[in-house]
Amino acid sequence: MRGAIIHAPYDIRVEERPDPTIVEPTDAILRLSAACICGSDLWPYRGINEVRRPGPIGHEYCGIVDEVGPAVVSVKPGDFVVGGFFACDNDCPNCRAGFHNACQNFQSYDGCQAERLRVPMADGTLVATPEQPPAELIPSLLTLSDVMATGWHAATMANVQPGMTVAVVGDGAVGLCGVLAAHQKGAARIIAMSRHARRQELAREFGATDIVEERDQAGVDAIRALTDGVGADAVLECVGTGASMIQAIGSCRAGGMVGFVGAPHGVELPIREMFTRNVGVRGGMAPVRAYLPQLMDLVLRGVIQPGKVFDHLLPLEQAADGYAAMDERRAIKVLLTL
Amino acid sequence: MRGAIIHAPYDIRVEERPDPTIVEPTDAILRLSAACICGSDLWPYRGINEVRRPGPIGHEYCGIVDEVGPAVVSVKPGDFVVGGFFACDNDCPNCRAGFHNACQNFQSYDGCQAERLRVPMADGTLVATPEQPPAELIPSLLTLSDVMATGWHAATMANVQPGMTVAVVGDGAVGLCGVLAAHQKGAARIIAMSRHARRQELAREFGATDIVEERDQAGVDAIRALTDGVGADAVLECVGTGASMIQAIGSCRAGGMVGFVGAPHGVELPIREMFTRNVGVRGGMAPVRAYLPQLMDLVLRGVIQPGKVFDHLLPLEQAADGYAAMDERRAIKVLLTL
Repeated sequence: MRGAIIHAPYDIRVEERPDPTIVEPTDAILRLSAACICGSDLWPYRGINEVRRPGPIGHEYCGIVDEVGPAVVSVKPGDFVVGGFFACDNDCPNCRAGFHNACQNFQSYDGCQAERLRVPMADGTLVATPEQPPAELIPSLLTLSDVMATGWHAATMANVQPGMTVAVVGDGAVGLCGVLAAHQKGAARIIAMSRHARRQELAREFGATDIVEERDQAGVDAIRALTDGVGADAVLECVGTGASMIQAIGSCRAGGMVGFVGAPHGVELPIREMFTRNVGVRGGMAPVRAYLPQLMDLVLRGVIQPGKVFDHLLPLEQAADGYAAMDERRAIKVLLTL
Repeated sequence: MRGAIIHAPYDIRVEERPDPTIVEPTDAILRLSAACICGSDLWPYRGINEVRRPGPIGHEYCGIVDEVGPAVVSVKPGDFVVGGFFACDNDCPNCRAGFHNACQNFQSYDGCQAERLRVPMADGTLVATPEQPPAELIPSLLTLSDVMATGWHAATMANVQPGMTVAVVGDGAVGLCGVLAAHQKGAARIIAMSRHARRQELAREFGATDIVEERDQAGVDAIRALTDGVGADAVLECVGTGASMIQAIGSCRAGGMVGFVGAPHGVELPIREMFTRNVGVRGGMAPVRAYLPQLMDLVLRGVIQPGKVFDHLLPLEQAADGYAAMDERRAIKVLLTL
């Protein structure tokens, strides 16, 4: 089969890779319907995360079950399924508490930018649609594997409630999905922090009511100016840098919560400011499996259309071009067709 | 009047100070019924917080209103009142949201280890009992000014819910009040981390079901061993050092909350661990005024007896001995009689 391999920073190649096979009785093999490139794939692409040796890449997927191991009971060949960006048993104490990211049998996988994929713990990881979804819903269903679930997680960890004013730091696909999540959760006012016209436009389409272009302290000041000096009731931190976290905490009102989902790179939390103003910080890797049933239902009913974050479609063979487009911020998010 | 002055680290003297007078029309003057020494008074006492010049000290109090400014409407001379360790207007957007610690007219005060005290914004700061309380309730009412409200805040920020397993890091008076708060909020299991027999005893009296004597990673391991490897559902961090915070986060289950109230000294939050396990951190200065009515009711009805944290009673004139006893951990908390 064909699949993307990262050889070194800025060196992505689509090559022949061995077809995956059932290894454990709890495995499933999928024929992927579409794949995509994640903002977090850019950490190794840019060399910020070390690339020690060439390896398969990609962790978002949806597709058709092709084969299942003998112990799999909840999905069967022919089912259309979505799974999170890691495998989980959906049964340990952490999964049962809704924090599948800390599954006691957690397994990460790379290599989802490919034609086929082995998914461990298929019963715990995959959720099937009731019937085959129409092709136009595939992009939105694909987002549930990571980006939309992650935006949803940011809003959940920030404790977004109906009527709140919510600020979103980061206008990448996750940030935009965070806007959509805050809107769906009933936020009255959503301030998107963005200086890119096309991303601003999508943010507004997803429910943003205000745009702030300033960054750092000027961005904080702008949020305060929009909120009578008080700050946003909840803030979604969707970048993962030290500057974005400082901006998020500064933009949050006293007693508010910052939900953070950007994988932290160089983040030092300002404990004194958190203490003085009682701004809480909670988040991390999204427990995708916890949100999949609800989000799948919202997509299938047409309530949310997170697939709009895909503004570049390329065949898998051109994955390298997709990485370059994301790296140069020409693309919000790239969908790889199969 | 007589009042305590900190001259330098380890140098507390009770001296003559001018009687306070009404300065603003919103002030009240109190004759204090009792005063006490706070764990946070030990930061300057030990020279960890700089003592630039001699000054009055103490920020916990309760007493009888002696005089009010012409604008004060909610308390009157003769009322028995408790106020938080800072003054607030109870009316700005942050106060209305329950985070009085960020009151837009916030004023701190020192000098409560004295016979009399000027309280600014008396209407926003003070809460009166319905009638004169019996003398035996004075210690418990005094704790509502800071230590009990702070323990309650830790449990509130950690989102303690009925049935939870709660760990409390810190066996000072705040940690012990945190145990009491967790018990009152319905925790099924409360693990107090303490290696002092007398504090362990009071922790059990306040509702602790388990004691862990180990510290640091051994303490984390002990909590995990008591919770099937999962960790506590909620953790109260009541110390404020880097080691105690690391211990608190490590002891918390994936997706759980650490409520922190120890004034941070040298704390670096482990953002990667918070991200990977989704452990949230929220807390800070307690919005005492938000909790005063409820806690006062619990004390007056005899439901909680937080005054038991006072195991040393000394006359105000012997405040220096009280500081030494707290510093050397001979006393859990010192009440200064007036």
